[in-house]
Amino acid sequence: MLLRPSALVSKTLRHTSNDMRYVERMRLLEYWGIKDAALTSEFRRSQFLVMVDRKPLVRKKGASIQLACHSYPELQRSLGEYGFSFDTTNSCLLDAIEGPNNLMIPLLGTSLKAVEPPEDSPVRKDDVLRELAKSLNAQFMDMRMAMLGLTDEKDRNILAKFQSLSRWYKTYLRCPKCGSPLHMRVSKAGANCLMCPRVYYPTCSPVAITLVADPTDSYALLVRHKASAPGVYTAVAGFAQPGESLDECVRREIAEEIGVPVSKVVSLQRSQPWPMPNSSLMCAHYAVTEMSYKIDAAPSELESARWFSRDEVAVALKRTLDDPFLKGIPRDINERQELHYIPPQGAIAHQMIRAWVEQRQL
Amino acid sequence: MLLRPSALVSKTLRHTSNDMRYVERMRLLEYWGIKDAALTSEFRRSQFLVMVDRKPLVRKKGASIQLACHSYPELQRSLGEYGFSFDTTNSCLLDAIEGPNNLMIPLLGTSLKAVEPPEDSPVRKDDVLRELAKSLNAQFMDMRMAMLGLTDEKDRNILAKFQSLSRWYKTYLRCPKCGSPLHMRVSKAGANCLMCPRVYYPTCSPVAITLVADPTDSYALLVRHKASAPGVYTAVAGFAQPGESLDECVRREIAEEIGVPVSKVVSLQRSQPWPMPNSSLMCAHYAVTEMSYKIDAAPSELESARWFSRDEVAVALKRTLDDPFLKGIPRDINERQELHYIPPQGAIAHQMIRAWVEQRQL
Repeated sequence: MLLRPSALVSKTLRHTSNDMRYVERMRLLEYWGIKDAALTSEFRRSQFLVMVDRKPLVRKKGASIQLACHSYPELQRSLGEYGFSFDTTNSCLLDAIEGPNNLMIPLLGTSLKAVEPPEDSPVRKDDVLRELAKSLNAQFMDMRMAMLGLTDEKDRNILAKFQSLSRWYKTYLRCPKCGSPLHMRVSKAGANCLMCPRVYYPTCSPVAITLVADPTDSYALLVRHKASAPGVYTAVAGFAQPGESLDECVRREIAEEIGVPVSKVVSLQRSQPWPMPNSSLMCAHYAVTEMSYKIDAAPSELESARWFSRDEVAVALKRTLDDPFLKGIPRDINERQELHYIPPQGAIAHQMIRAWVEQRQL
Repeated sequence: MLLRPSALVSKTLRHTSNDMRYVERMRLLEYWGIKDAALTSEFRRSQFLVMVDRKPLVRKKGASIQLACHSYPELQRSLGEYGFSFDTTNSCLLDAIEGPNNLMIPLLGTSLKAVEPPEDSPVRKDDVLRELAKSLNAQFMDMRMAMLGLTDEKDRNILAKFQSLSRWYKTYLRCPKCGSPLHMRVSKAGANCLMCPRVYYPTCSPVAITLVADPTDSYALLVRHKASAPGVYTAVAGFAQPGESLDECVRREIAEEIGVPVSKVVSLQRSQPWPMPNSSLMCAHYAVTEMSYKIDAAPSELESARWFSRDEVAVALKRTLDDPFLKGIPRDINERQELHYIPPQGAIAHQMIRAWVEQRQL
């Protein structure tokens, strides 16, 4: 196989999306998604995103955080030096991007696992990973931090796809119906059972995420999850179940989690893919309930659910914008139930709450 | 176990949804969804929907079609006479409904398979099912016909849940990661692997369904699927993939299926659960493209994609409303690619196309 020349040194990921070039790109992506031989033959021409132990490789420039993108030769050299190997089995198809000579090439995601050195080894895993990242002129970042901190929404969605597909192809090894091995496509866009005729696809689950306000739209009912960082309040969210519309999902989730009925549900017409805990599609909503209802937060899910005025939420928004990595989260146990922060800017909950504070459309 | 008296003879399904009673109902449903012993102890007090060979039991009154609902004793008597048995293993939890004395009781769905009699038997399966349905003062209806024809949207969503859960619990028998048997909850709202700590849930997959119009909003670009009945045109639809928003899904699907880019995407703020081919959540959208683009319908999916004026679509809408079971579909092969019908009223595509014809909000 001929390696194309190394015009492939764009150090961060570029996205293209205009008109017929976009149509061509989507159809090529669909083709590579199905045709194992075609995608395999592109492997060494591809560009790659990398994650090790669920930590993606990113590049920071001042306040900007972007996904780091590498050619096959670059990656082979650096990963090889640190004892990692990568091939079509631990890679998945993420996008079709501009390559040299106006040709489209695959963007692949390679997900690796670092082996812990023996206890008596002088080498520590974290040091190895730091050196590896340095050799690629980048750094590894916690998945959640990367999702919340990436500057570009397109980078964020590509990372969501990367993590969702990686998780999916590592889980779907056997047919849930008959237990036989599954044959996974090179793209990881589908898997066939080798015994029965079933085909499985990586899916995403719709989640309704809702900003609950009072009838005058002056107060917001925000919640603190058990797993949240101290002092962080956010919007209510829950998975849609089979047989319900998104509106019904909003009503049910608010009943289950906060114990109040709502009188009005509106779609905010925005959605965001999110890879944690699984592959989700967050769909933004707004709902209205009376402040006179007694709040009864479900203890299995929530630590607290409380009404806040727009001014109180505005203060928390400003604090979050000034301190986007929430370094000032309260240490004092008495402070953890107070509203200090909202989720950082990468989360759709942040955008929803911010739009509400600023009294504008999402 | 004490059987409660037979106030349980409401012959069609009633739904309740007001205020705190609604909150109580949702929380009870959540509780039964998790607690096997609690739901099992309610089994004989429950009301039941039934399907045999994927055909739900419905009741027709004039033009109205409703789900038929039965108490445990009624069902045990009739099913027993025809050699069927039902218990918690082939039933799933659908709702919490009003029982006697203002108590909530479960609404369960029982899904059965009819065995074909031996070839030399004088009895035919269809006759047995017809007799069984008659003994329950109801009739079996094809799943798609029932979904399209049920009068009440709540009935339709409950049937979507019934079919989605039935399909799910019959497929998820083994852990896709380790191949060990799964322990299915009585409600069928989740299943635990008996070996590894994984838990699986029945999911629904978001689908963007889109009415594509020209920039003047005078023409609609409708499609005919390979599997559609002759003469039926509808809106473009496709599953959202991990890592894309619904807007991105709309753009990609239209590029893949019709080969044109779109300049604008708007959410129509309505969604509908749909159980075919799998559990889907149809999310209604509107998109704009230029009529000057060359249409290039993907032959793997579509038989045809064509522009129609509002008047042409209005004629097909009227024909569909006058003949809701599409009995007049063209037999002539030359007519199958003409626009005769749109989908019947139970489909969100019908509602979207109708709202467009009538130039009003969905």
